[in-house]
Amino acid sequence: MRDAYHEELDSIGDSLVEMARLVGSAIGRATTAILDSDLKLAESVIEGDQKVDDLQHDLEGRAIALLARQQPVATDLRIVVTSLRMSADLERSGDLAQHVAKLTRLRYPERAIPQDLHATILEMGQLAQRLMAKAAEVIVTKDVDLALQLEQDDDAMDLLHRTLFQHLMDERWKHGIETAVDVTLLGRYYERYADHAVAVAKRVVYLVTGEHADELQQDIKPDIQPVSGVDGA
Amino acid sequence: MRDAYHEELDSIGDSLVEMARLVGSAIGRATTAILDSDLKLAESVIEGDQKVDDLQHDLEGRAIALLARQQPVATDLRIVVTSLRMSADLERSGDLAQHVAKLTRLRYPERAIPQDLHATILEMGQLAQRLMAKAAEVIVTKDVDLALQLEQDDDAMDLLHRTLFQHLMDERWKHGIETAVDVTLLGRYYERYADHAVAVAKRVVYLVTGEHADELQQDIKPDIQPVSGVDGA
Repeated sequence: MRDAYHEELDSIGDSLVEMARLVGSAIGRATTAILDSDLKLAESVIEGDQKVDDLQHDLEGRAIALLARQQPVATDLRIVVTSLRMSADLERSGDLAQHVAKLTRLRYPERAIPQDLHATILEMGQLAQRLMAKAAEVIVTKDVDLALQLEQDDDAMDLLHRTLFQHLMDERWKHGIETAVDVTLLGRYYERYADHAVAVAKRVVYLVTGEHADELQQDIKPDIQPVSGVDGA
Repeated sequence: MRDAYHEELDSIGDSLVEMARLVGSAIGRATTAILDSDLKLAESVIEGDQKVDDLQHDLEGRAIALLARQQPVATDLRIVVTSLRMSADLERSGDLAQHVAKLTRLRYPERAIPQDLHATILEMGQLAQRLMAKAAEVIVTKDVDLALQLEQDDDAMDLLHRTLFQHLMDERWKHGIETAVDVTLLGRYYERYADHAVAVAKRVVYLVTGEHADELQQDIKPDIQPVSGVDGA
């Protein structure tokens, strides 16, 4: 039987998984909303983010109370501190899903995304959702191999992001500046979302293995920037 | 005379101020670099970010050691936990300054920013640097009034960001898609940089007043999005 202390630690883990589930669903729904120009679905994502914020807020309160009351040391202390960081990553992921939904609302009833970019955006949205589902699984299973898979998935996201930039930079681009701005921001939202999912997984790896102290840091990977022939970013 | 414990707490505060100083200088230099297309200056910002990362890493280690050894409660515990969050904000601000510098390098020897946007970008860069200088001052002085000033400064940043979007959306825009993409990303870098500076100040307010629990959260303010006639974002 577990004591109250470990039950509380477990419940923090449960909240993280619930947050990951919510923001995973949010990016999936936001992607559908922007591709279909579905205002109602977009609104549900925008409103739903409050629940993620509330969960984070609640988790923070419990984590700090746990530190104060139980004064954990060593591994347990690291779990609590790392959970605070993971909750920040997940909260930010929720914001980014919300941004995708807000762009849908801003352009409604127009479609923000031209047809020839639908496939790429759909892939980015699906990949983002899969990354978050894997991050949630890593939180539950502490599976280091799965966590390392996320980095490969993230490489695929970078590739999609580059594809998006190539479309933008193509001389045959005919969708004008407003759409170029929207697509630029959208690409960044997905890329950052993926970064946070990877960060969550890496934090678990660090907890399990104690290795890669650098990965404790807020940002793991440099953001990619637009290309122009060479990738100098 | 202060005991070792409070000396350690103070030294964490000193590290935060040093980080703020470094990332404040970085955004100023990155702005000059992108406006002048000064590759050497850009490289110095890119390389200099390692020092910020190292400081954060070191600060985290000391904060966690302090939690483990001293097991602070109440206010002291909140100071340590909040310091961890502030260090994450500052580290991310450094990344954003580095992004500005990388965009300079990517476009070199071309200038990334057309002449008619120089004034706006310069203002954004200067405002970002002032915001960070004030954030550092707030860390030192715990001056709540000054912290609240940062929110007004941030409104000015939003206004500049909107100005930038208006330039982009103007039918007379003649700088092409690549520059539109660069300017879109650049605007976002400055805006997010400012958000993190404001977040740092708000976290201090929370420590001092114990109010505004919401402001403990990672993100305080919704990001602005491109406008198109009306601001629906």
